[in-house]
Amino acid sequence: MEQQLVQQLPSTGVGSKLPHLAECVYLDYNATTPIYPEVSEAMKPYIYELFGNPSSVHAYGQQTRAAVDKARQQVAGLINCSPDEVAFTSCGTESDNWALWGAVMARRGSSSSSSSSSQQGLPHVVTSQIEHPAVTACLRSMAEQGLCTFTAVPVDSQGLISVTDVVSALTPNTVLVSIMHSNNEVGSLQPVAAIAAAVRQAAPGCLVHSDAAQSMGKVAVDVQQLGVDLLTLVGHKFGAPKGVAALYIRQGVQLANLLSGGSQERGRRGGTENVLLLAGLGAAAELAQLEADATAAHMRSMRDRLAAGLLAALPRHLVRINGPQDSALQLPNTLSISVKGLSAPSLLQMLAQKLAASAGAACHSSHGPAVSPVLQAMRLHPDYAVGTLRLSTGRHTTADEVDRAVTLIVGAARKQGLEFGSSGSSSDTANGTAAH
Amino acid sequence: MEQQLVQQLPSTGVGSKLPHLAECVYLDYNATTPIYPEVSEAMKPYIYELFGNPSSVHAYGQQTRAAVDKARQQVAGLINCSPDEVAFTSCGTESDNWALWGAVMARRGSSSSSSSSSQQGLPHVVTSQIEHPAVTACLRSMAEQGLCTFTAVPVDSQGLISVTDVVSALTPNTVLVSIMHSNNEVGSLQPVAAIAAAVRQAAPGCLVHSDAAQSMGKVAVDVQQLGVDLLTLVGHKFGAPKGVAALYIRQGVQLANLLSGGSQERGRRGGTENVLLLAGLGAAAELAQLEADATAAHMRSMRDRLAAGLLAALPRHLVRINGPQDSALQLPNTLSISVKGLSAPSLLQMLAQKLAASAGAACHSSHGPAVSPVLQAMRLHPDYAVGTLRLSTGRHTTADEVDRAVTLIVGAARKQGLEFGSSGSSSDTANGTAAH
Ligand SMILES: Cc1ncc(COP(=O)(O)O)c(C=O)c1O
Ligand SMILES: Cc1ncc(COP(=O)(O)O)c(C=O)c1O
Repeated sequence: MEQQLVQQLPSTGVGSKLPHLAECVYLDYNATTPIYPEVSEAMKPYIYELFGNPSSVHAYGQQTRAAVDKARQQVAGLINCSPDEVAFTSCGTESDNWALWGAVMARRGSSSSSSSSSQQGLPHVVTSQIEHPAVTACLRSMAEQGLCTFTAVPVDSQGLISVTDVVSALTPNTVLVSIMHSNNEVGSLQPVAAIAAAVRQAAPGCLVHSDAAQSMGKVAVDVQQLGVDLLTLVGHKFGAPKGVAALYIRQGVQLANLLSGGSQERGRRGGTENVLLLAGLGAAAELAQLEADATAAHMRSMRDRLAAGLLAALPRHLVRINGPQDSALQLPNTLSISVKGLSAPSLLQMLAQKLAASAGAACHSSHGPAVSPVLQAMRLHPDYAVGTLRLSTGRHTTADEVDRAVTLIVGAARKQGLEFGSSGSSSDTANGTAAH
Repeated sequence: MEQQLVQQLPSTGVGSKLPHLAECVYLDYNATTPIYPEVSEAMKPYIYELFGNPSSVHAYGQQTRAAVDKARQQVAGLINCSPDEVAFTSCGTESDNWALWGAVMARRGSSSSSSSSSQQGLPHVVTSQIEHPAVTACLRSMAEQGLCTFTAVPVDSQGLISVTDVVSALTPNTVLVSIMHSNNEVGSLQPVAAIAAAVRQAAPGCLVHSDAAQSMGKVAVDVQQLGVDLLTLVGHKFGAPKGVAALYIRQGVQLANLLSGGSQERGRRGGTENVLLLAGLGAAAELAQLEADATAAHMRSMRDRLAAGLLAALPRHLVRINGPQDSALQLPNTLSISVKGLSAPSLLQMLAQKLAASAGAACHSSHGPAVSPVLQAMRLHPDYAVGTLRLSTGRHTTADEVDRAVTLIVGAARKQGLEFGSSGSSSDTANGTAAH
């Protein structure tokens, strides 16, 4: 059955060229992935035929109830938990918000809420400075509303969080530690298992959440090995459509509901189930589990080809690669590369019809460029930050795309007036940075 | 362009038979509708080809940004507002929760939050006893968390809310009135425009929300005519897939975010846009606007045929029809019919493979049947409540289905031992109840 899913469509597997990815090179898999062809196939019955409300007892409801159950099993299989521990949500943002809000409000409910109006009595959350806005904006908003306080621990220049920093930030009121599994911009893999173990020891009542949005389909994510209580995963980062995600909730964990309504998701999240996209999420999870090694190897080889090509062609002394130097601490698909003197936002604007990638800064009209909080937290010099491209490869990236991307980026850099010196570049790949 | 959408697929329009609705009669449109064929067609490009993240500047992002913009225009067109006033969400539950939470927390933020720990200082919400759990469960949860208080006004025996009751329930702390546009179980249309006008006068600072989940595609919903500040609509109740919805937020209304994250939905709701389902929601909205009269007429004629058939065949003295007697105060597609002596849950269980409908009570193991809060609020006698079927027709209901449903229900009632008397029934349709 699992074998079938892949063999059925042999020309659409890992490394194959998708016809609609022809004109414009796609190196923005961390922003979102194409829907994998196998996933589209799995959704087909639910777009054209099977439509019942899974809560209905009749035949139409039974069909879609089965689809939802199957998706839950597939997701549980991918992260190694029981299906009962998987709750479906609408996006990574909802999963992250739920983890934060749910942990804070569960504690608030259990303490005498009327006496918690002083800052000291409030539930406290530990997080990092490089989390996605789905975490940071939510914490900021809860803090403004007087519902909690929080501490964001720093990262080092490679984008790595230290276990000691997390433990030091714990207070007697800490109800949750939320540290991402891997970073979306620089690809750094965080020591989540070590953090969870240390927190468990230092603060036994405290929950641990990890946002693994960027890790699924790229590296192994096993909630038992990680020892976390809560984990976010997001469909559109590994081949399912945008608009569907999940939150792993370890058996027995007390979490307040974020969305209250009907009895869906065992009473934990109201709302009629998103049957069509759940069929896709399940198929993507199964595929990710099945192809884990092949996909990672392909992404890595494409990413390394890209890094080598760019380092060979760009003036070496103006270039740096961001993120952990140890490739074991790096996502296999992410290349954050900074070129001093380049404007990455203008480059991407100029190449909008030819190359899809992201920048480490956005153009802001009045105050100059707005550097991403992640690069700021890593203390990357603004000259480099503005010239930062985030390139991310994926299941359907081809060598041809990579080579075209190198040509396009180098050409655009020349047009921007970047100084290439005499021979245009050196092939020196010192500092281990090309080993990404 | 709009004409095309319908003419393209002439055999799939209002009243046509959908091939996958063959075996089991589908009279559960209020639970969820099939995805209309035109809607599936509109989603097709986004399931197979167009996939970019709408936040990306590149070609792939531009394509899906355009899709999201188009959907927003289509939804705005349906309810007569500006596209900027439409925020997309993942389900009706999220829209409802957002309206409630957002109004309460916006007020909490503006008053001095530390002094609001006493009951009196808390924001207050007025709602009704027949709202969907997406409203009632959320209010209950916020009240338990000490974030607000609320009053649920009663309904009369026809399931109608009185404007006076709503106004009487207002307090100086009332920040929101949330009254559904139509009820999902008995189809009663509430005097929302009159309520909004009266609240506007009695409590100028108070917001008005209406859950119009069940009204879209059945009756006209014009937010200008209604005069509401917030309105919920849900895709899967009018031909779009499950898992996508919207909240109308009148320009200038202060609403706290429920989901905080990226800058999507103009900073009001984080989360990468659900492009595929939004394409479907937009198409469904356009179709609903275009076909408003034809669909309503078809639903009504099918519903009336069903009512007439059942009233003719069932023992008249044991039967009552729930909801407003005035058909202008009734959804055109809903038939809530109670048969004393019948067990609706068992009937539906027995017919699960032949007839899709809902019951007014659920089987509960120990405490006997759990009657729906709506029927309880209408003070329907338990003997009738347990025998209540909710039958709802829709765009693709056929006369053949209706006739088969009558035969199936009557046959099952006989098997349950219902007393049919001598001639089986009378054709008396007094009390105006058959006029639904
Ligand atoms: C009146 C009403 N409001 C809200 C909802 C909730 O919609 P959803 O289940 O998609 O969240 C429904 C349908 O289930 C409904 O009928
Ligand atoms: C690390 C991380 N967390 C959370 C999210 C949020 O996912 P979504 O936009 O689907 O809500 C993303 C992607 O955007 C992400 O990269």
